Amino acid sequence: MEFRDQALAARDAAQVLAVTPTGVKNAALHAMADALLACTEAILAANAEDVRTAEANGTSASLIDRLRLTPERIGGMADGLRQMAGLADPVGDVVRGWTADNGLRIRQVRVPFGVIGIIYEARPNVTADAGGICLKSGNAALLRGSSSTYASNLAVVEALHQGLRAVGLPETAVQLVAGPREVTDVMMTARGLVDLLIPRGGAGLINHVVQGSTVPVIETGTGNCHLYVDVDADLDVAYAIMLNAKTQRPSVCNALETLLVHRDVADAFLPRALRGLDEAGVTVHGDERTARVSKAVVPVEEGDFEEEWLSLDLSVKVVHSLDEAISHIRRYTSGHSETIVTDSRTAADRFVAAVDAAAVLVNASSRFVDGGEFGFGAEIGISTQKLHARGPMALLEMTSTKYVVEGNGQVRA
Amino acid sequence: MEFRDQALAARDAAQVLAVTPTGVKNAALHAMADALLACTEAILAANAEDVRTAEANGTSASLIDRLRLTPERIGGMADGLRQMAGLADPVGDVVRGWTADNGLRIRQVRVPFGVIGIIYEARPNVTADAGGICLKSGNAALLRGSSSTYASNLAVVEALHQGLRAVGLPETAVQLVAGPREVTDVMMTARGLVDLLIPRGGAGLINHVVQGSTVPVIETGTGNCHLYVDVDADLDVAYAIMLNAKTQRPSVCNALETLLVHRDVADAFLPRALRGLDEAGVTVHGDERTARVSKAVVPVEEGDFEEEWLSLDLSVKVVHSLDEAISHIRRYTSGHSETIVTDSRTAADRFVAAVDAAAVLVNASSRFVDGGEFGFGAEIGISTQKLHARGPMALLEMTSTKYVVEGNGQVRA
Repeated sequence: MEFRDQALAARDAAQVLAVTPTGVKNAALHAMADALLACTEAILAANAEDVRTAEANGTSASLIDRLRLTPERIGGMADGLRQMAGLADPVGDVVRGWTADNGLRIRQVRVPFGVIGIIYEARPNVTADAGGICLKSGNAALLRGSSSTYASNLAVVEALHQGLRAVGLPETAVQLVAGPREVTDVMMTARGLVDLLIPRGGAGLINHVVQGSTVPVIETGTGNCHLYVDVDADLDVAYAIMLNAKTQRPSVCNALETLLVHRDVADAFLPRALRGLDEAGVTVHGDERTARVSKAVVPVEEGDFEEEWLSLDLSVKVVHSLDEAISHIRRYTSGHSETIVTDSRTAADRFVAAVDAAAVLVNASSRFVDGGEFGFGAEIGISTQKLHARGPMALLEMTSTKYVVEGNGQVRA
Repeated sequence: MEFRDQALAARDAAQVLAVTPTGVKNAALHAMADALLACTEAILAANAEDVRTAEANGTSASLIDRLRLTPERIGGMADGLRQMAGLADPVGDVVRGWTADNGLRIRQVRVPFGVIGIIYEARPNVTADAGGICLKSGNAALLRGSSSTYASNLAVVEALHQGLRAVGLPETAVQLVAGPREVTDVMMTARGLVDLLIPRGGAGLINHVVQGSTVPVIETGTGNCHLYVDVDADLDVAYAIMLNAKTQRPSVCNALETLLVHRDVADAFLPRALRGLDEAGVTVHGDERTARVSKAVVPVEEGDFEEEWLSLDLSVKVVHSLDEAISHIRRYTSGHSETIVTDSRTAADRFVAAVDAAAVLVNASSRFVDGGEFGFGAEIGISTQKLHARGPMALLEMTSTKYVVEGNGQVRA
């Protein structure tokens, strides 16, 4: 099917979904989960095909690992859909409402966007996750996955369609967008057909979508996250948070990338910190002051501060003041999550007010900046943009609003 | 000054504004209003220059009317700033907040966007209005007005700067962007320097900005507004709302453009409706059924239904059912404001659920869809997009949020 026809079918499906009761959407999510499990064999066979092609193309082992499905991973996808069924449905919520002096009753009500396009890389689990979050929020999904996972994605979507059919919802509520590379560009400029685009993947994909789209985009972005150890920090707290934020899962966007240490606590903190990092297998890219502490320190280069390492690497710098820390963060932040460790209320308040990011943390690990940890359930990503959604983008952020104005014949004077 | 330097100066100003107390911002708004009045003579002289140039260029009388300032209009700009001072400041509001199981205290707090660019046409009053709404919401403003109002805008901004200086705020909080046409394109692609762009003007300007921007845009759009007179309508109510929505101020986006009448009330409603419209000077572009009622009816052409007339013209069509009315609106709506007149709860509920627009009205004139009428005070426009802001875009919609996460050493397991 041509993209335009798919998009028009999605619009029709969106009109159905917008008025589908929560109970029916939840039943669909459970039926989709059942169908995923029932189709495990077919999905694994399709996935094996994708893996063979990827191996023949010389794809890296880590990419193949992201691409490969197992019965456990399919079970995880099904569990994700069942959890989605358990979350509150934001559609229909009244955001605010009042009665005007002239008797008009005005309500701002949550409604789905309509048609949401998701453009993503080689992770077949995104197909089920994104389909589920769109369905629960009443949106039709146009899923544009990587061509390297096409067979897997198709098998997953066929299972999702079985679930939709089981409860009488249109299959066109969740569609896989096929076709050559140019189709992505058609999707990005389908203004009026697609209400919102969400790219999920690396910086290259996100930039391509942001630069080329005329459809509104939510940027789920990179995380160049900083931790500032203040002069008034509890150094045990700082040590625990540093190790957790850097090493608990280094490949994710809320992991730590740069450590800033106030010079007056550098002597007390750095030797222990560098020892701990070394034991955890972290390569420290440090400034001169840091390098004096340990021979293992690699000299930090200016460009390193712009780096989202996503690996067991950490940039470290000693600063003269809270203000210097704030200036450094202002210059290099990607606007994701920034942390201060301090016992000073004044320093914490100043840091929170001055640092411009989706999340600003005081005495806690940035690894908590996550839809699940915030109690929102599943998320489609962490938005680093300021428009519409900032931070974890969960069900609530997958909705728009409309005003409903009810009167008994009011006209404007 | 080059645009990039202006934008960097705006970023610095935005950091000051983000932590400026409400009282200081309100004092600035009053000082700006005082300065506008004190500078009336200089502003009028600059404006006379713009008007002379426009007249020499053969500009239309209606455009010159929009461009021309009078002492009364300058007084209106000053009053607008004082009213802005009286509105609640959204910055710092806690949108939601909770304590997680692990003791983390999490708050979602309203913050300014940072730097907002406004691109607008030949209305010098927008300079003061936009500067005021940005300042109150803690945002630095980069104002890109039409070259035909440059002298007027410059004189207005100089007055605003006097007001900012009077309270010790940086002049760079409100800047006029000068230079040739290409500067607009530089502004539209200044991702990372400008946080949000708002075009204010006709469809041509808005499309240009939407198509060419990589900076996030809020579309304040056109209004192709419909009124559907249901079979269960109170026809007196329908008549009053129709006349009000069409004629009270035909040139604005929430005015009525198309009337849809259920065929079973056409005989009872149309003769009276056409008489009233004729007396009000409205040209009716009607379908065959409508044309049978009055010789004054001009045959409607298919393209007319796409028309935002913005004049004393009205498209009229007789429909067979509520569903046909909804289908027509789905096809032609610009997503602004759509109205049903009915006494049937079932019909009203179905219309409200099925019509996708910023505002859906039952038994009330679409002229009420307005920031002032909604009680929001001043607005920068009516957003017809679904991302971030939909409907009147007032102070609240000029803000983003950040999460503040406070703990005592929590790390993720």
